[in-house]
Formats: sequence, structure tokens, C-alpha cells
Amino acid sequence: MTNRNLPGDPAPYYQAHVFCCVNERPAGHPRGCCKSKGAEALRNYMKARAKELGLKDVRINQSGCLDRCELGPTMVIYPEGVWYSYRSIEEAEEILQTHLIGGQRVERLMLQQGDKLPQDRK
Amino acid sequence: MTNRNLPGDPAPYYQAHVFCCVNERPAGHPRGCCKSKGAEALRNYMKARAKELGLKDVRINQSGCLDRCELGPTMVIYPEGVWYSYRSIEEAEEILQTHLIGGQRVERLMLQQGDKLPQDRK
Repeated sequence: MTNRNLPGDPAPYYQAHVFCCVNERPAGHPRGCCKSKGAEALRNYMKARAKELGLKDVRINQSGCLDRCELGPTMVIYPEGVWYSYRSIEEAEEILQTHLIGGQRVERLMLQQGDKLPQDRK
Repeated sequence: MTNRNLPGDPAPYYQAHVFCCVNERPAGHPRGCCKSKGAEALRNYMKARAKELGLKDVRINQSGCLDRCELGPTMVIYPEGVWYSYRSIEEAEEILQTHLIGGQRVERLMLQQGDKLPQDRK
């Protein structure tokens, strides 16, 4: 349940629903895009690895532009609404293990409200 | 907050984050696909209309396959995790007005856990 739920809403269809931005902008666009930073391969890894790990009721989707392009590649995990900036297979694996399996957070990769880069990348 | 949130999670970046499936399968696929049922035009309407209505902190995204193809076109609205099957501009508008603006539900179009078609379409 979230604070936007109403009585009578169905139970969650997926326990965790992950959206990985794979949006592509024209080359040279000032905001950049997730696709040019390897988002597609990272998303494909997330999807294949979630299957391999047997994660139940977890769905790894690709999405259009999540509008946090400068911080990309980005993903958001619902219903908790936690965002990550991830740039490598190792970071994708850490998010799978720590967040999706462990229920914890990879804090150094999390995006904060004010559109800042994760702490170790400032 | 959801029951998957942890202390220290950032505030929601979007108040409502809508994912409209626009996935395309090859013609004749037994599950069908949202795109062949007009999903792209419906998603474009949702996006343009949300802007026109001035909905703040609402994001209308396209997504890959949400895996409820038989019920499509489908969308899911997070963080509440409410799913809809919608087939026309009028239904898209009703979801905008009733759910995204009014905070209520378009109950007859909602998907239930057991993959059933919305009530008026059985």
C-alpha cells in the first residue's frame, strides 16, 4: 500500500517493477541520453540476470525517457520509487543483489530529489 | 511511502508515474500486443493531454512489454500500482480526469490480480 492507494485497490501485480530508461536522443543533444551511455546493454543484463536468479514477481522493463538524462543511465524501482544511476554490469548486479534480493539500498548510486549526481560522482 | 520503502528513501520524484505499454509483437502472435491495438496513439494522447491540463509532477512514459498483453492496451500508474486496460481516447481522458486529477479510480477499466478482463468486457 502507498499513501496514494485507495481501499479496494488490487494487490500489487509485481512485487518490484523496474523501469530502465533506454531513450535515445540525436547525437550532440545537450542533455545527452541514456542509450548513448550503454543503457540498452545494462537493461538487457538486468532482465537476463533477474531471470537467471529466479526472481519472482520482479519485472525488468525498458522505458522511454525518464527525464533525468544528465544522470543516466537511470532506472526507477516501483512501488518504492527509488531511482538509481548505474553505469556498469557490476553496478547493475549490485542493485539486483542488494535492492531486489536483499531489500536494501545501494546508497552511493541512488538519485536524490534535487537532481544531483550520486555522491561518488560529483 | 510504501511498505517497501526504507527510512532515508528520497521523497517521490513524480507524484504519479504512468507507464503505457507500446510493445509490438510480430503479426499473428497468439498473445497479441498493445501496439496493434492502438497503444501508441493512446499514449501520445495521455502525454499531450497531461501537459495541456498542466498536471504537475505527473510523468506519462512509454514502456516495453508489461506482460499483460491479452488485456491491452494496458497502463500502470505508480506508486499506487493501479493497472488499466484502455481502448479509446475517451477512456484515456477518463483515467486522466478521474484518477490522475481526481485521485479516484475508473473501476470498470481496472485490471484485477487474476488477469481478468475489466468487468464490462468479459
